Amino acid sequence: MGRSYQIIMLENKVFSCFVFYSVLLVIKMYIIAIITGQVRLRKKAFANPEDAQRHGGVQHFREDPDVERCRRAHRNDMENIFPFLFLGAVYSLIGPSLVVAHAHFLVFFLFRVLHTVAYLCVLRAPTRSLAYVITQVPCISMAVQILACVFWLYR
Amino acid sequence: MGRSYQIIMLENKVFSCFVFYSVLLVIKMYIIAIITGQVRLRKKAFANPEDAQRHGGVQHFREDPDVERCRRAHRNDMENIFPFLFLGAVYSLIGPSLVVAHAHFLVFFLFRVLHTVAYLCVLRAPTRSLAYVITQVPCISMAVQILACVFWLYR
Amino acid sequence: MGRSYQIIMLENKVFSCFVFYSVLLVIKMYIIAIITGQVRLRKKAFANPEDAQRHGGVQHFREDPDVERCRRAHRNDMENIFPFLFLGAVYSLIGPSLVVAHAHFLVFFLFRVLHTVAYLCVLRAPTRSLAYVITQVPCISMAVQILACVFWLYR
Repeated sequence: MGRSYQIIMLENKVFSCFVFYSVLLVIKMYIIAIITGQVRLRKKAFANPEDAQRHGGVQHFREDPDVERCRRAHRNDMENIFPFLFLGAVYSLIGPSLVVAHAHFLVFFLFRVLHTVAYLCVLRAPTRSLAYVITQVPCISMAVQILACVFWLYR
Repeated sequence: MGRSYQIIMLENKVFSCFVFYSVLLVIKMYIIAIITGQVRLRKKAFANPEDAQRHGGVQHFREDPDVERCRRAHRNDMENIFPFLFLGAVYSLIGPSLVVAHAHFLVFFLFRVLHTVAYLCVLRAPTRSLAYVITQVPCISMAVQILACVFWLYR
Repeated sequence: MGRSYQIIMLENKVFSCFVFYSVLLVIKMYIIAIITGQVRLRKKAFANPEDAQRHGGVQHFREDPDVERCRRAHRNDMENIFPFLFLGAVYSLIGPSLVVAHAHFLVFFLFRVLHTVAYLCVLRAPTRSLAYVITQVPCISMAVQILACVFWLYR
């Protein structure tokens, strides 16, 4: 098997499109983690005594507002990008048109990136909240379409 | 392709059943996020200085017990619903009977909803903890069945 | 359907290999949750007033360094294992060689376990950070290979 199945999945253009944006968003999350680590080193604010010990002493085992901001951005990503990974994958299987599906994925991707930029660069409120609300639109849309599809099949 | 593959996935009744409850649980998580936002506005307790500034002043950049409760409920959902999205999807592929699989998904769904209600409405302990323990039963069951299936194929 | 589709998925040896390590990692996360609960009971430090009330009084509604350590380990797992569940599943579909794919999954698994042990047992820095960095190598590798595959198909 392998080859044949592989081709089935990847020749689903909607699925490939979804995978493209999803992998970029996962990489975006990894970048937040790297930034968090850099801010911890620069501000000397570590989450664990053993890390603080290694970087100058246990007094550096403390919270820092900039580190907490990174962590909030990261947590918000988990709350929103992980559900997207699920909804987008299932949505790809219910046969949407490529154009419509692409619009869903692109809107989510762009405004999720804006959300992160607004968070880390402290853009003026309500930029970040608006970006969040807009990313929810394709997610709710996909959720509703998936439920409709399941209902239609088994009514 | 598209159509044919789509039909393969959705004519797997176990998978469709899993998708149905999973999407409802994702929507449940979105609702917790909305509630958190409403509580933040009502209690005037914001996670970021720029949000507080917009809603009356930087003194509203503070924690609030009701907001923290919502955030704990949301985090607990991430710790448990996200693994379910993975286990349930794989479990749907190992060919369980629809009745048994449905029981797994339904128990997880119902007690996960109870968990959220118990969290947000401060139901008496140990309601919430019991709901959590019961949701773990179908998860562990699915995990064990998946491992058994993989072993059986490649022993 | 059912049977035939099931066999397609599970006869993808790379996918089965991925599923094996992924389910073990999910179980590892469940174990952290159990440990957190045990530490809460032992140290009498509860996240909710209603839990504290049940275990001796509202003064036990408090934070504890050992509990917070467990929670940091759990959160770090969410930040890293959940993306792996996505990347690994998609990576299994792009037809990598079993040996190479197995190496990716095994490295991630082993160093993720080491990360948890280093966290909970307070191993000397930078053991934990090194384990984290090493687990990122297969993840970045899979992400790049997936993107390359999507590009190659649709260039």
